[in-house]
Amino acid sequence: MTSNARITLAKLPEGSNGLQGLPTPGEHLILDQTRTIDLDNVPLNGGFLTKTIFLSPEPALRERMRDSSIQSYTTSFIVGAPVIGFGLVVVLRSEKKGIKAGDYMYGQTTPIDFKPEDWPPATFDMDSLALQVVPNPGGAFPVTHYASALGTPGLSAFVGFEGLAQAKEGQTIFVSAGGSGVGNMVVQLAKQKGMKVIASAGSSAKCDYVRSLGADVLFNYKEDGYDVLKQYKPIHLYWDNVGGEALEAAIEHLEPFSRVVCCGSLSDYNKAPSERYGIKNTTLIFKKRLTLTGFIVPDLIPQYGRRFFTEIPALLAQGKIKSREVVFEGIDNAPRALLAVLNGGEDAGKVVVMVAKE
Amino acid sequence: MTSNARITLAKLPEGSNGLQGLPTPGEHLILDQTRTIDLDNVPLNGGFLTKTIFLSPEPALRERMRDSSIQSYTTSFIVGAPVIGFGLVVVLRSEKKGIKAGDYMYGQTTPIDFKPEDWPPATFDMDSLALQVVPNPGGAFPVTHYASALGTPGLSAFVGFEGLAQAKEGQTIFVSAGGSGVGNMVVQLAKQKGMKVIASAGSSAKCDYVRSLGADVLFNYKEDGYDVLKQYKPIHLYWDNVGGEALEAAIEHLEPFSRVVCCGSLSDYNKAPSERYGIKNTTLIFKKRLTLTGFIVPDLIPQYGRRFFTEIPALLAQGKIKSREVVFEGIDNAPRALLAVLNGGEDAGKVVVMVAKE
Repeated sequence: MTSNARITLAKLPEGSNGLQGLPTPGEHLILDQTRTIDLDNVPLNGGFLTKTIFLSPEPALRERMRDSSIQSYTTSFIVGAPVIGFGLVVVLRSEKKGIKAGDYMYGQTTPIDFKPEDWPPATFDMDSLALQVVPNPGGAFPVTHYASALGTPGLSAFVGFEGLAQAKEGQTIFVSAGGSGVGNMVVQLAKQKGMKVIASAGSSAKCDYVRSLGADVLFNYKEDGYDVLKQYKPIHLYWDNVGGEALEAAIEHLEPFSRVVCCGSLSDYNKAPSERYGIKNTTLIFKKRLTLTGFIVPDLIPQYGRRFFTEIPALLAQGKIKSREVVFEGIDNAPRALLAVLNGGEDAGKVVVMVAKE
Repeated sequence: MTSNARITLAKLPEGSNGLQGLPTPGEHLILDQTRTIDLDNVPLNGGFLTKTIFLSPEPALRERMRDSSIQSYTTSFIVGAPVIGFGLVVVLRSEKKGIKAGDYMYGQTTPIDFKPEDWPPATFDMDSLALQVVPNPGGAFPVTHYASALGTPGLSAFVGFEGLAQAKEGQTIFVSAGGSGVGNMVVQLAKQKGMKVIASAGSSAKCDYVRSLGADVLFNYKEDGYDVLKQYKPIHLYWDNVGGEALEAAIEHLEPFSRVVCCGSLSDYNKAPSERYGIKNTTLIFKKRLTLTGFIVPDLIPQYGRRFFTEIPALLAQGKIKSREVVFEGIDNAPRALLAVLNGGEDAGKVVVMVAKE
């Protein structure tokens, strides 16, 4: 018998039915090592058995840790059940056509077939982003890139940038949270498009890293604030990963007729709605004739997903797109790794939890 | 000699270079009756001479009462020079081809040919919306409709609704400031499109008026607040004339994938930027995949202006579109009329300043 550990959501974070505050390892997030599995004999019932190589903690996990009565864009987690995120797995045994032992698969590491029928319309069932066979890079690049440039962060950036940004060569984009998995990729896609790139990050180490990806101007928002943007005008496009003060400053300094792609609100996730930063310059939306558009990844995968999975691996292999990950070793470190992400991420790259050697 | 009175901007309203506070009649807005004109002999130099029938005080006038160093979507007024707004005039004499005595003209009643070269890009020169010959309704409807359904308010509503709202029959729209000139028209256009219409206004008399235009649900935001919107879900489209709390509540209660057309921010115009209401739920823009788009009228006139000027007079004459105006008599009442508009408008219709009989 082999240990079959998992991280469960023991209880919701405090306040507002789980909407505010950070989850605490050992209290809200529990390592459950009580289960074992017989790898050779567990019945597959036409399915397949996988071993997790890594897990990819991402901000959206926080959103799912809420009472199911609170509507949001994702389905919520079940208290007492495993915390499910994206990960890379390798197939150990398979009875399913098209999937064979040794295949790599990427997607939600959903262990149960839970399909509630009663979610409100436009709530996306994250668990439906099931595991898909992906190429084994075979040494062309580290597998951990599947947690960053080749994973959901890179995919979010790609489909949003291609679908909504209307990027124009020679124009300037501002990317907040440039050091995040999504931010990294937007910076690089914008440079490939011939744009000038301004990015913000929360430490000088992160600034250095994002600069190394090609960004033209970096600033540390914790030291300089976002109003420093006025030095870098004209700015024609804003990719918002942060919300709050960053969004307000961008609206303040964008050129007329600019676009804002709303991809995330890192500054809001752990705050009660009443404690969030209120932006006061929405009058500029009409005065400057701005367009703000929000998206979540699944909306745009049908149109742009195929190009992502063909173009980005090639660009990574050629070194034209870069991806860097910070590895936390062992599933027991997964709660701590998620906390690191929710607290702003690591300086040197996207957080990955390495669960097992390939 | 005939009196040639005008209202001049004697000085900017207090604070932030004119951006905050209301202008006070007699202090910031002065009736200048010192000038006279010889109607029969004044040289026209190839132009034409008009008599003003009415002036149409509108919120955008406030925006122009600022220091010219402050960028905005409109050109600013010159301190000491006349306050220029939209109006209806009748031609007394003309040397210009295509314009003859007796013609009605509507547009900015610009008395001077002032074309500065140094406005920042995308600043719209309001004065360029020069007088154009318009049909004399000849009794089919009151000429004051040129200040409301047939004027800039109606035009704003029409071009924005046609160009940006993507209205769908059977869906629900929320219109804030439903009692305003723009709001009135959006309500009626939405009803023509087969939408359910929810509107807000600031008095029960205004609510009654907007209900008489066909709106399905009215609420008095001063009594009920905007959060009452949650009773009227699902809402698929929001026409924002108000900003601030109205915008926040709409974002909170809109369906996923909804649109917001940003046309104005009545709640912000007389406040310093720091005193404006901060909206805290911008994270819902991505979570609900909303699109917010701002516009000002001249952006969309090239595409939709011609249809407005052909379709709306016919609908008015047939009684399918209604327009109601509250008349202030005499140019000496113009500052007071503008104050009424800036304070939320009159209950019973769009404010018009009647300057002379036809």
